[in-house]
Amino acid sequence: MTPTADPHDTLRPIAWQGDHLRLLDQRRLPGEVVHLACRGVDEVAAAIHDLAVRGAPAIGIAGAWGMVLAASQALSRGETGVDALEAPARTLIAARPTAVNLAWAVTRMLQAARAAGVIDPTALAAQARAIEAEDLAANRRMGELGAGLIAPGSGVLTHCNTGSLATAGFGTALGVIRSAWSAGRLSAVYASETRPWLQGARLTVWELAQDRIPATLLVDSAAAHLMAGGAVRWLVVGADRIAANGDTANKIGTLQLAIAARHFGVKVMVVAPSSTVDLSIADGSAIEIELRDEAEVTRFGGQATAAAGVRAWNPVFDVTPAGLIDAIVTERGVVERPQPGDLAALLVATS
Amino acid sequence: MTPTADPHDTLRPIAWQGDHLRLLDQRRLPGEVVHLACRGVDEVAAAIHDLAVRGAPAIGIAGAWGMVLAASQALSRGETGVDALEAPARTLIAARPTAVNLAWAVTRMLQAARAAGVIDPTALAAQARAIEAEDLAANRRMGELGAGLIAPGSGVLTHCNTGSLATAGFGTALGVIRSAWSAGRLSAVYASETRPWLQGARLTVWELAQDRIPATLLVDSAAAHLMAGGAVRWLVVGADRIAANGDTANKIGTLQLAIAARHFGVKVMVVAPSSTVDLSIADGSAIEIELRDEAEVTRFGGQATAAAGVRAWNPVFDVTPAGLIDAIVTERGVVERPQPGDLAALLVATS
Repeated sequence: MTPTADPHDTLRPIAWQGDHLRLLDQRRLPGEVVHLACRGVDEVAAAIHDLAVRGAPAIGIAGAWGMVLAASQALSRGETGVDALEAPARTLIAARPTAVNLAWAVTRMLQAARAAGVIDPTALAAQARAIEAEDLAANRRMGELGAGLIAPGSGVLTHCNTGSLATAGFGTALGVIRSAWSAGRLSAVYASETRPWLQGARLTVWELAQDRIPATLLVDSAAAHLMAGGAVRWLVVGADRIAANGDTANKIGTLQLAIAARHFGVKVMVVAPSSTVDLSIADGSAIEIELRDEAEVTRFGGQATAAAGVRAWNPVFDVTPAGLIDAIVTERGVVERPQPGDLAALLVATS
Repeated sequence: MTPTADPHDTLRPIAWQGDHLRLLDQRRLPGEVVHLACRGVDEVAAAIHDLAVRGAPAIGIAGAWGMVLAASQALSRGETGVDALEAPARTLIAARPTAVNLAWAVTRMLQAARAAGVIDPTALAAQARAIEAEDLAANRRMGELGAGLIAPGSGVLTHCNTGSLATAGFGTALGVIRSAWSAGRLSAVYASETRPWLQGARLTVWELAQDRIPATLLVDSAAAHLMAGGAVRWLVVGADRIAANGDTANKIGTLQLAIAARHFGVKVMVVAPSSTVDLSIADGSAIEIELRDEAEVTRFGGQATAAAGVRAWNPVFDVTPAGLIDAIVTERGVVERPQPGDLAALLVATS
């Protein structure tokens, strides 16, 4: 199916349809634009687990709408007590462990229901809509703040997909790149393909093409060679969870890119909404790293790439220590060269 | 086709058949074991360019046999002067620019013909056989020398394929791993998949499986996370060209791995026959880096992974500076922490 003419509609990963949740099936991009209709919590959890919807902010929003479906399902079973939402909340949160936004959004929905004291799908839908609207506004703000750090004429490299497809729209790291491009600050945009799931190849360069932002794709392991040639001044990435000291869990490969960036004097910018900051953990050692199926590494597109019986190790996130990060950009402000306490101070000062 | 029971036969990339050159078509591994019959120089050059045969030592050997075919072709055209071998030599050398072994082997064949003063396919075949035998012997010797550097109980990571498939047999970096495994020194072997061509996934773990050496595959960008966890003590890689000061061109991604290794205190070993050392260039800045087709990045296993029109940058080698290398292992000896002059001194002392 050909993408529709309106990029904002094509790129919209999540759309509430009044009685069900429409998810753009990102597993089939860019070849096909196909949507899933989720009518219950289990379908939403499966879509999150199986990567039909992915990206830390987007899975938070999908989880929030999953709680609206959970509310309707409870009422249809005749259950009106808020306790009926607890098992669905656990199911949603368990769908993916690393990104904190999922737990954050689902917990916020559960707390809203508890505050109301009754299950009210309409009120919960308003709450989910608020999460979505706040995410979009946060992205626009982060785009401005992050772009302001980038000197005119800079080349940038991004990893994974952090754009409209990963959020309520516009994107986190890709939002910064969009803003910086619009402001005429960028000399070049590079995107790593992001194995094993190829978010960069399948999603990021597709998104950028729809915005007519020229981008160049490279294999993940070519990034250091790119940096050695001087083509890149900033590595701009998203985050799945940021510890209190600034240690950042993000897509596997981010650590390697950040180490190479430091080696070559390339700056590292992490862009994430404040809901990604987890002040409950002091540093990155407490972040659970999701291990996924070996077949994501040993097979591709339905074909085996490694011989039968080969074992693979497939951690899909890693933790970049705060010491390798030059700036953490949130919608509430920027922390440069994060030190323990900086993020807490920012969040308190702006709460 | 099922691999035959004898691993040494299955893994043999190059076999002279008296009147033609049999090449194992490595593009179709591990799914199919299929051979190509090359009866002329152009077919050998195409097989080298198109990666049916790959690996710096192996393409040198293939190039040598290509010169034997060139000799027969010249005689069949009635050309007996050695000058007739010059154009074929240029064709072979031009097939791939970065690995010096190809130019080295073809030039050695041309010099042998010039020394004889006539075109003599039988004498040239003996020369090609000598190159092959020397490579195998060098690999065995490098295996011993390199394994001797590895402390018992070490985990090792390798990149690309440097085994029997890349050489006359046994391998360079993979030869060291084979020797160290046989000596009981290794706690674990990890192989990076090596995008874009997946030499690690398709070839290395397949080779190791046939030797019953357990290995774990990972995506290239997971290596830093692996190192952060302490599982690896040595990064062991091959080389396509080593400059006089020790700067080493090798498969794209080696630089990134070496930088991560230095960051985590993991040691870096480069394993290559002395024919890989190019004393004519002072440092790595003079090494031509081969850029290959963008489609190797935008497609995967015959399927498009990026949207139509996406641009990709596909350098297939990079240069690791000598300062990031702990040991260069050749069949003539080991240079630790290479300084300018060290390699020249080793080669002079052992010549």
